[in-house]
Amino acid sequence: MNDLLITDVAELATPLGTSPLAGSRQGEISRRQGVEVFCRDGEISFIGTPEERRGRFGDLDGTARLDGAGCTLVPGFVDAHTHLPWAGSRENEFAMRLTGKTYLEIAAAGGGILSTVRATRAADVDHLVRNTLRRLDRMLTLGTTTAEVKSGYGLSLAGELKQLRAIREAGRRHAVDVVPTLLAAHEFPPEYRDDRDAWVEVIAEEIIPACAVGGMARFCDVFCEQGVFDVEQSRRVLLAGAEHGLLPRLHADEFVDSGGATLAAEIGAVSADHLVAVTPEGAAAMAGAGVMAVLLPGVSFFLMKESYAPARRLVSAGVPVVLATDCNPGSSHTESIPFIVQLALFQMKLSIEECLVAVTLNAACCLGIGERAGSIEVGKSADLVLLEGDSLLHLGYHFGVNPVRAVVKEGRVVHQVA
Amino acid sequence: MNDLLITDVAELATPLGTSPLAGSRQGEISRRQGVEVFCRDGEISFIGTPEERRGRFGDLDGTARLDGAGCTLVPGFVDAHTHLPWAGSRENEFAMRLTGKTYLEIAAAGGGILSTVRATRAADVDHLVRNTLRRLDRMLTLGTTTAEVKSGYGLSLAGELKQLRAIREAGRRHAVDVVPTLLAAHEFPPEYRDDRDAWVEVIAEEIIPACAVGGMARFCDVFCEQGVFDVEQSRRVLLAGAEHGLLPRLHADEFVDSGGATLAAEIGAVSADHLVAVTPEGAAAMAGAGVMAVLLPGVSFFLMKESYAPARRLVSAGVPVVLATDCNPGSSHTESIPFIVQLALFQMKLSIEECLVAVTLNAACCLGIGERAGSIEVGKSADLVLLEGDSLLHLGYHFGVNPVRAVVKEGRVVHQVA
Repeated sequence: MNDLLITDVAELATPLGTSPLAGSRQGEISRRQGVEVFCRDGEISFIGTPEERRGRFGDLDGTARLDGAGCTLVPGFVDAHTHLPWAGSRENEFAMRLTGKTYLEIAAAGGGILSTVRATRAADVDHLVRNTLRRLDRMLTLGTTTAEVKSGYGLSLAGELKQLRAIREAGRRHAVDVVPTLLAAHEFPPEYRDDRDAWVEVIAEEIIPACAVGGMARFCDVFCEQGVFDVEQSRRVLLAGAEHGLLPRLHADEFVDSGGATLAAEIGAVSADHLVAVTPEGAAAMAGAGVMAVLLPGVSFFLMKESYAPARRLVSAGVPVVLATDCNPGSSHTESIPFIVQLALFQMKLSIEECLVAVTLNAACCLGIGERAGSIEVGKSADLVLLEGDSLLHLGYHFGVNPVRAVVKEGRVVHQVA
Repeated sequence: MNDLLITDVAELATPLGTSPLAGSRQGEISRRQGVEVFCRDGEISFIGTPEERRGRFGDLDGTARLDGAGCTLVPGFVDAHTHLPWAGSRENEFAMRLTGKTYLEIAAAGGGILSTVRATRAADVDHLVRNTLRRLDRMLTLGTTTAEVKSGYGLSLAGELKQLRAIREAGRRHAVDVVPTLLAAHEFPPEYRDDRDAWVEVIAEEIIPACAVGGMARFCDVFCEQGVFDVEQSRRVLLAGAEHGLLPRLHADEFVDSGGATLAAEIGAVSADHLVAVTPEGAAAMAGAGVMAVLLPGVSFFLMKESYAPARRLVSAGVPVVLATDCNPGSSHTESIPFIVQLALFQMKLSIEECLVAVTLNAACCLGIGERAGSIEVGKSADLVLLEGDSLLHLGYHFGVNPVRAVVKEGRVVHQVA
């Protein structure tokens, strides 16, 4: 028996259902005050008043309890876009950026993705597992109960497999559920700098077939952007992935409109991510094809860019919006979904309700787990976060701090602030 | 005996001296790798290599130790501008702002400073002590070891005294040192709405004399701004405070150039705070008169303003810059100096070294405690913060999370992450 009774919750705030919410429904949440939530065998088995609970289950005297007084209960956060299993560190590039150095100057000085590729290639799988676990630890304390994690710093068959193995092993050992993504098409490795199409073929013909077996990856991703993978190369990679059962998603229109959103719509990708430079036509195409938008405001903040992805415009266009950390060593070194929500509030002008949907139900649907995660409903997995403050508003109102009081994963309290 | 040995510090980063650093010296810090710090009887008594330490103190086998491996040691943060002892909460105003409501519309709906005044007047001193202690707890976990704390939500003799008593009591009970400021001139209370000068006279003739005795306050502050206290009223309050031994400082040029910076220079104020709208002339006057600039970027972030105080221009003008949270319920609800540093890096383009000086030595000098706090030097109080990461850069590089591993106050470990 694995029972947990969460009592006296000041506010329970959650989206409902198993499908993404978009447009005017992006911020559609249910709010209840003064309720209890009873978890049994890892699932939510009851939500209601103390009187209702006693009528159905009795006093539950010996049952583990979590006191929700003065707190807000929300679904466990789902971080739908991260790059956790990296080695090395790039704080020096960050220092160069602060002094006005450009991305190209930093790359010329040996920085950028390829510097992380060098460090990650040199690390063994245990090192990558440890690094991933440390980051998952931090994410858990910030309320994340499920995370998508990408490869993409190996850029060889062996290197990508090593990262995917590290992801799988870290997921086995950690309370946070991990959903793996193959991102061999993250960059062009030095070995293929002069024959880029050859690298695309290696990905399509060798790496994807080898990584698609045994559940090593669920998604296939590609960095579709000017100077990286063009639309044709991206299409080739994503279709090859789909042939092997890997669902397509892509980094799209991060710096310029590179046709990524349109490609996502054309091939029916699960999501297009970044989208700072998405055009109205791209947004409309995504809405029409049911492609979700994964927005990553930490990148705009960390790279000190003036502009953020046009979140309000995407909501208006009817695209279901997801918010994620993009946790990575070069452009968004944070594990904090609460801070990402605060950026979305203050910089993108989403409402707190829209943000909650974006980091719970919509994110879960993006990862294909909307049936069991992303909302607080009877029958779903008991993945829950207890936040300080007696209403959801405090998640934005009390900024720059960690608002998480406790985290419940599959009905067990896996983190609690003293 | 109260000894503590901090071993194997990856990087020790600190300003030096007891005077504020300005201009090209704003970012002047000392960096040492692989050192130990030995604290005795609350003071720093040694900084050097393990060999040097053994030569002077021997093995110190029975001494308490703090492992600094992989971490950066910096002076305890000094938060030079907060409004901690408030009652009530204003998350609803925050929600109104998110939907585009203006400050005036919010005030018309019963919001603004006066809503906190109502709640704080209705609270007893114990309630205010508890609230202040809770906020000091949070500050300590984020590395703050000294905080200035203002009154200003009483707006009557009894109300201001009640807040100052709460500040003193909280300071007595808490590890964080507290420096009290009288801010009776925070707003005009409803009772004096139609005779504003009469309120200024009450402050000057009754409140200041009563609050200046027994060390209840060290500073006298005023909100000099269009629609609040004009320059003449501000001068009257600050000169009255100075007559009673309260050092002048002021909220200046937050929304428009209201002459606050010039007034600060004219009367030799310790600091002018906010300064988002400071003019080049105001900055030059401050530099000439030795007035420090206390910048509060959390307000720009939280109020979703386009502009931040011109920190680079103030540094260029030779004004010593301080960074602080402005922790308050209406315009900056955060206790996090690390997050304030990140805003200063990413939004104000200060360097990490300039930021460190701004939250340690310069802040300590602003509070008049530069002789004993603000730097890691033999003879100063052992107020120290151990940050994750092997260089100071990680304080900005790993954003949106709490980087504090341990806090030492007067030689004792008062907070440590498991």
